[in-house]
Amino acid sequence: MNAKHIVIIGGVAGGASAGARARRHSESARITVIERGPDVSFANCGLPYHIGGEISDRSELALQTPESLRKLLNLEVLTLTEAIAIDPQAKTVTLRSLTDPSESSIGYDQLILSPGASPIRPPLPGIDHPRILTLRNLQDMDRIIEAAASAKRVAVVGAGFIGLEMAEQLLHIEKAVSLIELQPQVLPQLDPEMTRPLERSLRDKGIELVLGDGIDGFESKGDAVTAKLSSGRTIDADLVILSIGVRPDSQLAKEAGLTLGPRGHISVDSYQRTSAPDIYAVGDACESPDPILGGHVAIALGGPANRQGRTAADHIFLGDKALPYPGSIGTSIVRVFDLAAGVTGASEKRLKMTGTTYETVTVNGPSHASYFPGAETITLKLLWSPDDGRVLGAEAVGIDGVDKRLDVLATAIRGRMTIDDLVHLEFAYAPPFGSAKDVINVAGFAATNMRDGMLVPVQTLDDAAGEQIIDVRPPAVVEKLPVPGATNIPLPTVRDRLDEIDKSRPVFTVCQMGKTSYFAARILANHGFDARSILGGAWHQAPREGD
Amino acid sequence: MNAKHIVIIGGVAGGASAGARARRHSESARITVIERGPDVSFANCGLPYHIGGEISDRSELALQTPESLRKLLNLEVLTLTEAIAIDPQAKTVTLRSLTDPSESSIGYDQLILSPGASPIRPPLPGIDHPRILTLRNLQDMDRIIEAAASAKRVAVVGAGFIGLEMAEQLLHIEKAVSLIELQPQVLPQLDPEMTRPLERSLRDKGIELVLGDGIDGFESKGDAVTAKLSSGRTIDADLVILSIGVRPDSQLAKEAGLTLGPRGHISVDSYQRTSAPDIYAVGDACESPDPILGGHVAIALGGPANRQGRTAADHIFLGDKALPYPGSIGTSIVRVFDLAAGVTGASEKRLKMTGTTYETVTVNGPSHASYFPGAETITLKLLWSPDDGRVLGAEAVGIDGVDKRLDVLATAIRGRMTIDDLVHLEFAYAPPFGSAKDVINVAGFAATNMRDGMLVPVQTLDDAAGEQIIDVRPPAVVEKLPVPGATNIPLPTVRDRLDEIDKSRPVFTVCQMGKTSYFAARILANHGFDARSILGGAWHQAPREGD
Repeated sequence: MNAKHIVIIGGVAGGASAGARARRHSESARITVIERGPDVSFANCGLPYHIGGEISDRSELALQTPESLRKLLNLEVLTLTEAIAIDPQAKTVTLRSLTDPSESSIGYDQLILSPGASPIRPPLPGIDHPRILTLRNLQDMDRIIEAAASAKRVAVVGAGFIGLEMAEQLLHIEKAVSLIELQPQVLPQLDPEMTRPLERSLRDKGIELVLGDGIDGFESKGDAVTAKLSSGRTIDADLVILSIGVRPDSQLAKEAGLTLGPRGHISVDSYQRTSAPDIYAVGDACESPDPILGGHVAIALGGPANRQGRTAADHIFLGDKALPYPGSIGTSIVRVFDLAAGVTGASEKRLKMTGTTYETVTVNGPSHASYFPGAETITLKLLWSPDDGRVLGAEAVGIDGVDKRLDVLATAIRGRMTIDDLVHLEFAYAPPFGSAKDVINVAGFAATNMRDGMLVPVQTLDDAAGEQIIDVRPPAVVEKLPVPGATNIPLPTVRDRLDEIDKSRPVFTVCQMGKTSYFAARILANHGFDARSILGGAWHQAPREGD
Repeated sequence: MNAKHIVIIGGVAGGASAGARARRHSESARITVIERGPDVSFANCGLPYHIGGEISDRSELALQTPESLRKLLNLEVLTLTEAIAIDPQAKTVTLRSLTDPSESSIGYDQLILSPGASPIRPPLPGIDHPRILTLRNLQDMDRIIEAAASAKRVAVVGAGFIGLEMAEQLLHIEKAVSLIELQPQVLPQLDPEMTRPLERSLRDKGIELVLGDGIDGFESKGDAVTAKLSSGRTIDADLVILSIGVRPDSQLAKEAGLTLGPRGHISVDSYQRTSAPDIYAVGDACESPDPILGGHVAIALGGPANRQGRTAADHIFLGDKALPYPGSIGTSIVRVFDLAAGVTGASEKRLKMTGTTYETVTVNGPSHASYFPGAETITLKLLWSPDDGRVLGAEAVGIDGVDKRLDVLATAIRGRMTIDDLVHLEFAYAPPFGSAKDVINVAGFAATNMRDGMLVPVQTLDDAAGEQIIDVRPPAVVEKLPVPGATNIPLPTVRDRLDEIDKSRPVFTVCQMGKTSYFAARILANHGFDARSILGGAWHQAPREGD
């Protein structure tokens, strides 16, 4: 057998992983990496942190160089080279050098597409102003650093993961930052009530947060730019960062006749094979199966990209003995100053959108034993299927331990585990690390209590507006954050004051975090009241500034 | 139906949880808690940290008081009261007050035993010296604090979880600490190679660590004690803390005719029912099913105790509709200065002891993206079944993120997940929190590579003694920590220097952490060599001081 030639288009994340894994399978295969940019395998997720100076050494971001890929993996690396056409019949790729106008052709036995996704730049008036930048690669990063050096005011448009990281890092280097988001919340991947702590924190730190407002266009104003918002408001900035999402770089695939999904992502099977023989696709440009809801999702994340690259390489050498890629559940996280927030699996929004039946509960618990110094509250939202109790998704926000809970729940989702399983997950417990009843156990308790009728929940205070509300917190706590219209009957006195509650009407109990309100509701229910507990507690009901 | 009377013997952890859960089920049940000590529901796991001052306020350790249990849960609480006999036929318990000599009898409909376990105090010569103390409750803690105040030298006997916490905390309050352990390693729950970093750290911080030496007895020496070791060595101390393990407080159960396990633990079914009708047992005094290896285990941990208490209460009210307790997998962790170390599921020791077929791999990886400040190495050992790939156990040690990896793997074990599942676990990745390929994914890669013949592993350098060893690290790294007898052929030069390696003999590759040695072994194997990679790397081979 002649040595096979594997051509990889795109030398970052998925492409680099595919090349490395292919080489582990074979020393004799010829492996060529085509990369449009000057760099391969750089740390895209680290770019905002070099802009903000938290990663001080730029060279840390270059995980590999074309030279190191040659030396370590014997890859042929063609940088500054664009693949401009694929001929799936002839099994060739037409290449154009970006440094001279020459074109050439290269044959392949297997082709792996890892073109990635580009930041969206909508065709708005004034969008081409040189001070309106996006962030995808090291060169973009360098441009932003240069522009930021002389900028006082920076507007970040789009408050998703990258927008939040950019806003944080730009404040870190003492810019006046405006963060503008079309949705009425930051981090639209999460459900709105979960992002309130982030919004409070952003405002507390001095970021101007503009929610629920779009950009109609930009106007040049000397060296600066004026962003014109849909509301009529204007924001002046010396630099604008656009982070409103990405679009798959699938044009080449489309022109080659490969099947694309509804939003332009390359369709692949569970071995990352496209619709054309011997052509694979990995990373941000392709779709993945959705193991939770079925169908397909497009998830632009580094972890999946790397493991998809590995899967494609395995399939080239092992055929259907390779381990299939099981799909992506979209586990992700962002740090915003002291806070972390993230999601795994489906959000409530997405479950509603897809018409999926679900139940949800939100609980609060300490990051580690509450009696040990440094414990911080984690708010955890759990979503599950009432049919079989299977966990469908989770979101968490807090100062410490958010990543741990998301990772555990991502594992539970992957293992198709249920709310009953969460009850008895057995975690590493010592006071500095956890609690005897971790917040994930507590979420399992609450979810199974709901199913079993022990907990009749109401999600938020708003849902109890106008009803008979009993606030069971201590009076001193009530005074600081009162619940309008509620009667204060502290938990220890509930049994003695039953006659103050109207048994002919439903009664809604509320406390700070949704825990003792459950205790009170149990007392009332066991005394024959129609009692419901307000899950979110009063804690979460602090008004959204600017609402 | 008359209101039932539930009697609970033992008001800490499992007993307190059972009482609380029972009250959620019913307002009319009479619930009586019998507690020998003066306190209920205190934070036993926090005791060492108050001794060391890290938890400064003693009252933080009292999670509930008899009074709060009365007020919040309407429990009848009898403290300083000992249950001295159970009559399962008559369904009565004989009680003796510890404050006056009176005895009384109390009837029950259901009885829940939560007696806990006592620190072992072996019948050694001199063991009754007043300066030899154990730690179980708040009173023990107070005694230790008082004795430590005037002590300069403290000997801690037993280097399990509590012994390590005590040693750390006593150093924290500037005592000269000797830590003595019969086994040739600290934390005998883990495999010996995983505890080396702890041992180095303990010695680096100035703790005198005596391993592989037992105590023959004690001698009084004025106010102080001399511990006489089996080796003939003596250690003088002003205070001795015994932390060599616990023994179930199952005497009462035994006298009542309940079935006990081989080591004296109360036998229970999956609803925590003992062999006698309407008597349940929970917590450290009882056995649990072992969901990994089958049979039963006795695991003295707070998390299981609490959840067993909940299970017993649920069964009393729901019968067999209650969620059964699925057994304990022994997830546990300890902090030792900057380090954390822990285990979930079966250790290699235990698998050997039980004659279970297993495979194992140890990998090293960063706690979060290596290019982001603060990344620390985690060493992760994975054990799985070669029959079906199911994860059997894991151990981890490192400075940051050890608890997270243990919790994820505990979840994977509970979900009966396999090494293939670990490959594609999708974690919350942003540079401050994780890596695109987390160390757990990497362990999955290594394990599946072993199964698939891509990685032919050798556990440690010792296993390659006298063989052809190729050290693939950069020369500058080799110089700092050389591997005796190895030839240095740095990874990037391996392909050019194949003719320096004897193809007629197996070749063992080694690097710092076991990663690039795998890369080199793949190159060699693909060139026809019989190549094996030394998993532990040179990093772990630093000699154990005192070996």
